[in-house]
Amino acid sequence: NMTSIEELKLRVRELENELIKCKQKRCTAIPRIDKMSAEVVDSNPYSRLMALKRMGIVEDYEKIRTFTVAVVGVGGVGSVTAEMLTRCGIGKLILFDYDKVELANMNRLFFQPHQAGLSKVEAAEHTLRNINPDVQFETHNYNITTMEHFAHFMDRISYGALQEGKAVDLILSCVDNFEARMAINAACNELGQIWMESGVSENAVSGHIQLIIPGETACFACAPPLVVAANIDEKTLKREGVCAASLPTTMGVVAGILVQNVLKYLLKFGTVSHYLGYNAMQDFFPTMAMKANPTCDDRYCRKQQDDYKAERPKKVVEEVVEEEVVHEENDWGIELVSEQTEEELHAASGPVPDLPEGITVAYTIPEKETGASGGETVEETEQSLEELMAQMRKM
Amino acid sequence: NMTSIEELKLRVRELENELIKCKQKRCTAIPRIDKMSAEVVDSNPYSRLMALKRMGIVEDYEKIRTFTVAVVGVGGVGSVTAEMLTRCGIGKLILFDYDKVELANMNRLFFQPHQAGLSKVEAAEHTLRNINPDVQFETHNYNITTMEHFAHFMDRISYGALQEGKAVDLILSCVDNFEARMAINAACNELGQIWMESGVSENAVSGHIQLIIPGETACFACAPPLVVAANIDEKTLKREGVCAASLPTTMGVVAGILVQNVLKYLLKFGTVSHYLGYNAMQDFFPTMAMKANPTCDDRYCRKQQDDYKAERPKKVVEEVVEEEVVHEENDWGIELVSEQTEEELHAASGPVPDLPEGITVAYTIPEKETGASGGETVEETEQSLEELMAQMRKM
Repeated sequence: NMTSIEELKLRVRELENELIKCKQKRCTAIPRIDKMSAEVVDSNPYSRLMALKRMGIVEDYEKIRTFTVAVVGVGGVGSVTAEMLTRCGIGKLILFDYDKVELANMNRLFFQPHQAGLSKVEAAEHTLRNINPDVQFETHNYNITTMEHFAHFMDRISYGALQEGKAVDLILSCVDNFEARMAINAACNELGQIWMESGVSENAVSGHIQLIIPGETACFACAPPLVVAANIDEKTLKREGVCAASLPTTMGVVAGILVQNVLKYLLKFGTVSHYLGYNAMQDFFPTMAMKANPTCDDRYCRKQQDDYKAERPKKVVEEVVEEEVVHEENDWGIELVSEQTEEELHAASGPVPDLPEGITVAYTIPEKETGASGGETVEETEQSLEELMAQMRKM
Repeated sequence: NMTSIEELKLRVRELENELIKCKQKRCTAIPRIDKMSAEVVDSNPYSRLMALKRMGIVEDYEKIRTFTVAVVGVGGVGSVTAEMLTRCGIGKLILFDYDKVELANMNRLFFQPHQAGLSKVEAAEHTLRNINPDVQFETHNYNITTMEHFAHFMDRISYGALQEGKAVDLILSCVDNFEARMAINAACNELGQIWMESGVSENAVSGHIQLIIPGETACFACAPPLVVAANIDEKTLKREGVCAASLPTTMGVVAGILVQNVLKYLLKFGTVSHYLGYNAMQDFFPTMAMKANPTCDDRYCRKQQDDYKAERPKKVVEEVVEEEVVHEENDWGIELVSEQTEEELHAASGPVPDLPEGITVAYTIPEKETGASGGETVEETEQSLEELMAQMRKM
């Protein structure tokens, strides 16, 4: 009997050790670091980032630890966005999503099969904490578009920053539907909160990012980017047996240019892009700037525009350099400032695929004269914006 | 005593269960899938990729399972490249690297702190197998530039494909030094193997990808991309207390445009880019095409050029559309075909940072007339190529 007890005790000890090792392998807690160091040693997770100072790119890299960024939508773009910011050592991340990880998400970066069934925010927080324990995380597993959650969302972006009671520094929209974008847009217009929009087309081969400064640049209600598909989200698509395509490449590029723009904006280096598109078929990257629309449907947007105009004479216009207007003003008061000529845009158009109803391809410019075909596709002309707005009102 | 035995037995059972759960959490083996399905269900990891067919983007997505790709260098770009290809369901990946994972790599995507100390290929294979068990992996933990390993490298790329005894379909160079690029270049010229080059600048804010078709387009010895820094690798930099900067954003974008080009090339959709640059400071994406240099130092390159010319009349020139030559032929016989004007290139130049000796910034075009300054920086002119070649010969 004694041997049996001894044997059992030994077995318990063995198992306990194995379990510790297993858990450590899963999440070896690396020590928190109080102050970012530029020391060039293998054990320093920040050496390659601090090198940006020595290289003359960023003046004060450590400042990244003071910023709070909210990421809405932790899917193909949002999860990689959160991971990049985590690895860059951002101060605090607030994540919003109400979806669960599915095996059908495995064709995009970040989530792993063993996380299937977990909520996206829970799975993301676990992975990100292991990657960088210096980042603070706050997660909300809900849909921001419902009345009750929208109020809570407004509260968290208004007061959720690292500096107690302060608003977040930036909100990143990484959602996959029109309704959620409009909710973020409404919140940011009301609060005067700067945010960045991102999107990937339903055919997986184009995407865009956009910086929105309420009152100054076009908001999402002034002129939605050309085009984040129609008013159909992933759930609807799935319910109707239709399934949007997606690629880890396109989503990785969009997350990359999004977070690059975030770093440039927060750490003040390079040129912050107002709008940057990605057409993967042609490797074409359109840029432009859009001013706010004086007749925007969102009353807070119009109010922000009034405030901006009133303050403007006092303000030193630093970063937003006025670019040459290549398109004339249209009925909507939207000015398109494009670096591409009409010909270049046409040349960059991909083939128009046979799409299910309600799905539109971003950036595909149909032939001007063939008015009959391609009614679903949006043209980058004054008329098309008008049509789009009318279309959207009907929805 | 009996209770004690019962208690111990209970504890053993508890621990065993916990250990099983812990191990499952780390690597839940998802079942292998024989045939890619387009079914739209949450449990299908390929539904969003197969949707590319319905969307009219890719004709035969399943064909991806027949391809073998070799990735040389599993660092900031190579690891994400391998992950994207794994998630896309590539047939087989052959990974080459001789480095170990360090905490100093945590500012880039893919590797996690608990992997510090493991070889990069071992850590990568473990993660990638868990993500997609349908992909075949072959890893080599060695430096391809040593004589003995170079011979083995040549053997594996010549005969390592899924189809027994066949050559790989594509080699991707994701290395961080000049020597390794020249080794891949030499191997591919000798074998007539198509490959793609990638690189990120030492200041972390620019990068490029390049398609190299031996005999047809410029090889790495004909004209190295403008510029993958000087003949200094990470190890040298570290030894000398200098540390290259890096960002997860830039490396994610470069991996994204690289794998997108791989997918377009293998699955025959869109336009395969010959050269695509990324200037993060200005969000500028230069493209160009470079023909092979008839006086290239690599004799296998010259032989491939002869073979290509001999075969050409018979060949239907499909993808490589002749573009307008905007730069005149130079002494090196290199023709630069650029979609950007000189002015655009100048406009896109970033500030020239104060760099350690031997480090050059990619894509920064110095002022033409100020010949005195910026000797380290390479101009995109006929002279600069000449100078660069001369400089490199001296190394």
